[in-house]
Amino acid sequence: MPMTFIETLTAAWAKNDSLLCVGLDPDPAKFPAALAGRADAILEFCQNIVDATADLVCAFKPQIAHFSACRAEAALEALIAHIHARHPGIPVILDAKRGDIGSTAERYAREAFERYQADAVTVNPYLGHDSLEPYLAWQDKGVILLCRTSNSGGSDLQTLEVGGGGGERLFERVARLAVDWNASGQCALVVGATFPADLARVRELTGDMPILVPGVGAQGGDIAATVKAGRTPKNGAGLIISSSRAILYAGGGEDHAQAARRAAKETRDAINRWR
Amino acid sequence: MPMTFIETLTAAWAKNDSLLCVGLDPDPAKFPAALAGRADAILEFCQNIVDATADLVCAFKPQIAHFSACRAEAALEALIAHIHARHPGIPVILDAKRGDIGSTAERYAREAFERYQADAVTVNPYLGHDSLEPYLAWQDKGVILLCRTSNSGGSDLQTLEVGGGGGERLFERVARLAVDWNASGQCALVVGATFPADLARVRELTGDMPILVPGVGAQGGDIAATVKAGRTPKNGAGLIISSSRAILYAGGGEDHAQAARRAAKETRDAINRWR
Repeated sequence: MPMTFIETLTAAWAKNDSLLCVGLDPDPAKFPAALAGRADAILEFCQNIVDATADLVCAFKPQIAHFSACRAEAALEALIAHIHARHPGIPVILDAKRGDIGSTAERYAREAFERYQADAVTVNPYLGHDSLEPYLAWQDKGVILLCRTSNSGGSDLQTLEVGGGGGERLFERVARLAVDWNASGQCALVVGATFPADLARVRELTGDMPILVPGVGAQGGDIAATVKAGRTPKNGAGLIISSSRAILYAGGGEDHAQAARRAAKETRDAINRWR
Repeated sequence: MPMTFIETLTAAWAKNDSLLCVGLDPDPAKFPAALAGRADAILEFCQNIVDATADLVCAFKPQIAHFSACRAEAALEALIAHIHARHPGIPVILDAKRGDIGSTAERYAREAFERYQADAVTVNPYLGHDSLEPYLAWQDKGVILLCRTSNSGGSDLQTLEVGGGGGERLFERVARLAVDWNASGQCALVVGATFPADLARVRELTGDMPILVPGVGAQGGDIAATVKAGRTPKNGAGLIISSSRAILYAGGGEDHAQAARRAAKETRDAINRWR
């Protein structure tokens, strides 16, 4: 039996003493000059970041649009293969936020798990339980549902009160449904760092379900508030705290990988002060 | 000025006297034997369908997962280029159901509109207004928001009552927000054919905004009920009624393109009986 995503994640939390996830959102306009114009710039840049930070993280999270907008699917395949080969034990979360009905969701699941060999994928809950089943059928994989997102527009729908007057908001309903749908222990949730009170509420509703938290770093979420609101009582873990731009582009020159390592170490250590 | 998506769609409704959209969801397991094992099977199959039905439709709708799960991005690019070159005036809707925050949404918009040259893209509303703005910035393109989906799980969230006790359901709120967000006239909505009463309600809320309706054909939605519920009062149009599998796989043999043409013509004519 291969290890499941949750088992791999749990081991990585412990081994690297880290809740930090480095988001891989390559933007060629921000690459060091030495990579400019190189056909393999995206892969090279991302591999440099990965190799410089792999002992400091609990996961890597490539964001697929940053590859597909540049026809760089082959680079994404090669990057994930590189992580698995060179840094075994660090899970790869494919950030794709897919959401479609059964027959199409089955294709998206193949894309994430078979083609790209991701350990987990982010998905959108708007289409409900049957849109998630094709992902859950991959029993060793993780399925990470959007719950409360870090952007301002997240409040257009996610904080609406739903149902019979009890004051439950839509993102709380999503968290409760995720608990119901989690019979196989594969689910996790996305909650932005910009709303610590909502993160605390989701932690209250979901026990020790992992929570992926984007929004620290460039988006301005506060690390102390995030960790205090989202950690699991049992072991001060339970969080996958993702930072992308603040780490990837910490240095703009030839030292970009070492600058990323310094930024990653600082972020990991800042997180650990509050666990 | 190029024509906008809505202008192109409106012209195609009239020119082909059709509200039918053929969904291009290629499944190599269902292809005719003559295509088996050919490297260009996906492109060849889809081009055959397109060429056999282009005078019967108001739009084509390739579903991106059916290409990306098979590493067939190049076939998708070539297919859309073929539609534009050989069948100008028929808009292409890229069915991708994207949903992410601003900086990533900007990449997804480039993927759809720059790389694939689609005329419109489907998107998920769960992340709110700022997740849609990068698509709306492409002013001649269409942005088609999921509202009420055709699958059973669609009712997990979309029919929850929201807000202050007025009985408004989540999909109705999405329809109202789409009207608010539609200052530039680029928006449309997705409402499944399996819920005609909900389709009628969305039509009531949105005036003559186009509605993309999947779920006739293989998913069992009723054509008469769909057209009566969703047509615009003014001219009996306003709908993009999508059928994929029932047309693509109407014939299993060498006659597959002619069988698709017959199925498309029957569906178009069945729709027109109720306009």
